[in-house]
Amino acid sequence: MQFSSESVETLVEQFSRLPGIGRKTARRLAAFVLKQPKSDVVEMAEALIAVKEKVIFCSTCFNVADHDPCPVCLSDRRDGGVICVVEEASDLMAVERTGGFSGKYHVLGGAISPLDGIGPEDLKIKELIARVAAPGDGPVVREVILAVNPSVEGDTTAYYISQLLAPFEVQVTRLARGIPIGSDLEFTDEATLTRALEARVSV
Amino acid sequence: MQFSSESVETLVEQFSRLPGIGRKTARRLAAFVLKQPKSDVVEMAEALIAVKEKVIFCSTCFNVADHDPCPVCLSDRRDGGVICVVEEASDLMAVERTGGFSGKYHVLGGAISPLDGIGPEDLKIKELIARVAAPGDGPVVREVILAVNPSVEGDTTAYYISQLLAPFEVQVTRLARGIPIGSDLEFTDEATLTRALEARVSV
Repeated sequence: MQFSSESVETLVEQFSRLPGIGRKTARRLAAFVLKQPKSDVVEMAEALIAVKEKVIFCSTCFNVADHDPCPVCLSDRRDGGVICVVEEASDLMAVERTGGFSGKYHVLGGAISPLDGIGPEDLKIKELIARVAAPGDGPVVREVILAVNPSVEGDTTAYYISQLLAPFEVQVTRLARGIPIGSDLEFTDEATLTRALEARVSV
Repeated sequence: MQFSSESVETLVEQFSRLPGIGRKTARRLAAFVLKQPKSDVVEMAEALIAVKEKVIFCSTCFNVADHDPCPVCLSDRRDGGVICVVEEASDLMAVERTGGFSGKYHVLGGAISPLDGIGPEDLKIKELIARVAAPGDGPVVREVILAVNPSVEGDTTAYYISQLLAPFEVQVTRLARGIPIGSDLEFTDEATLTRALEARVSV
């Protein structure tokens, strides 16, 4: 016996399915929920269901949104001539938080990873190519920024996409790699430092 | 804008209300939920609501349970003559996990903490005294183990209860304090080490 209530056990089970939540944390969360007023808990349950019922994917950029097209695609104050390609909607958020990008996005839904059985056809790659090939009413796409993760999977995906984009008159760029701001040279890993050396710029 | 979906924002908000979950983790959890099949998410929402709808507090020991009395109070294989007093149901679980206690429990629902506005009347203290004073059909209570937390609040609560139990013919005990198993003398804090010295035992 852990908790003497099956309902609580079930909730612990559910919490521990979340990423990064172990059994101990799950028990702490369940104990917290037990102490919360019912209305608060119902609110949380409703938020969970609403996400699955209301959230759709934008048919243009595949960002998560409540309506199609998403606010970013709909906005005419953003430059449709530059598309920032990200792996996940959470990466899009990260770029948005910088406040330094005013183009549009394209969410791939992951990265090519043969080990995990994810091939190019599982991602929204052909939809990206279509956006570049036939911009429709929008402006001609001048630049595609490949803002994929600095990993083997991200590199593979970037290479694959850049090959597909080669026939088009579009500039393909990647995020700069180097030492992160606020870090310490002494504690920077070798791979990052090597890249930073290779990509050194004149001052 | 963070996520371009209000539903996702609401869920992030809800997750970040949980203890120990910051905004970053909440975003990661929301992104996970977005990728989960709807049936799994509905299951989790139902588990949350079930906890508030089904879980009651045992009218004897105030443990969380699906039925009243709780399985521990109902069991006749447990010694009703020994009551282990804990602050929270999660502490009860911790004691149960040792497998070394076969008596019954009493969950106070917290500890006396004037700073947080929690007085003795907010806890199930008089119910505990009543159990000792009038055991009803059950056996006479021979021992009350105060398994409260080793904190100022726990100490206060233990002292308060022991005073109330003084008129009764019942042994009142506390958990032993000392160096935790597997720890290192060098890194043990002074308060613990002082207690361990004071409470030294002959071998």
